[in-house]
Amino acid sequence: MSLSPEDVPLAKAYRLLNHGPTVLVTSAHSGTRNVMAAAWAMPLDFQPPKVLVVIAAETFTRHLVEASGEFALNVPPRSLARATVEVGTVSGRSMDKFQQYRLKTFSAKCISAPLVEGCIAWLECKVIPNAYNQSQYDLFVAEVVSAQADPRVFADGRWKFEYASEDLRTIHHVAGGHFYSIGDVVNANQ
Amino acid sequence: MSLSPEDVPLAKAYRLLNHGPTVLVTSAHSGTRNVMAAAWAMPLDFQPPKVLVVIAAETFTRHLVEASGEFALNVPPRSLARATVEVGTVSGRSMDKFQQYRLKTFSAKCISAPLVEGCIAWLECKVIPNAYNQSQYDLFVAEVVSAQADPRVFADGRWKFEYASEDLRTIHHVAGGHFYSIGDVVNANQ
Repeated sequence: MSLSPEDVPLAKAYRLLNHGPTVLVTSAHSGTRNVMAAAWAMPLDFQPPKVLVVIAAETFTRHLVEASGEFALNVPPRSLARATVEVGTVSGRSMDKFQQYRLKTFSAKCISAPLVEGCIAWLECKVIPNAYNQSQYDLFVAEVVSAQADPRVFADGRWKFEYASEDLRTIHHVAGGHFYSIGDVVNANQ
Repeated sequence: MSLSPEDVPLAKAYRLLNHGPTVLVTSAHSGTRNVMAAAWAMPLDFQPPKVLVVIAAETFTRHLVEASGEFALNVPPRSLARATVEVGTVSGRSMDKFQQYRLKTFSAKCISAPLVEGCIAWLECKVIPNAYNQSQYDLFVAEVVSAQADPRVFADGRWKFEYASEDLRTIHHVAGGHFYSIGDVVNANQ
């Protein structure tokens, strides 16, 4: 990585997801790890920060998250769009997707799931178990216990995409590998 | 409105929210109506389509949604950014925000909540009550019973922002009235 991630104060962690980017969900348990893509993730609370993510029942990630009670949400930039599609279309049950798709990782601060290098934000999360939401809706509530971001695009509690390379913009999945990157600043007073 | 909204097949309704836009939540009960902004809304299921939205306990919208069991998610484009901030910062308890901020409405097909003219997509939703999620997390699960979109930007089941005016792009709130509009198409195969 060209720059080191910087800590994001937990009270500002919701801002990493507030604009609706697609994320990579990383997980680990008992020596096995995995990564999948998720468009259905969002903030749920400010402080302590909580998030929601939908993790389908048949996925290998679901098994690792339920076994470990932890996951990380990694926010991929445009340069990882292809990898995001790739890890979103195959199962990690029979392969290590990090190796297969050449995704390097680094250690999280508070959980065992790895964090994906080249992403621009990382939220380390501990599941708040809820059997009904998990079984009925594949829906996981979790508390964010650590947050980091790439200071080239997130600093002083704000995204700063307009000052960085286009390759560092978040990607927003519509369907079938069709993404938009985040665009221009909108001045709501004009 | 320059064009009439067109129906979106329910199986494609999730695509209206999949890329994470900020929405306007409209509601009505017993002759009273309201509109608020929400960045915390996302799809929860494909078919029948379900959505999640966080509606804080102290809001007037919360009262109307719990009383009626219905709401609509209206997707505002860039041209409504200012109105989105305005309706997100005052309560509708003591005023009609539609009148105050000159938001015209039209009738929904399946619910009593009004739909906001000038938005580019509309999801009519019926709450699936869950006392724990609502009280603990301010979180509402709802089924989408009707969906429409502005055919200038959503057609054949896809957003087509790249072929329309910049003013018709979705807006994505970060914090404090700071939005980004949705940007360029990302080709994940490059």
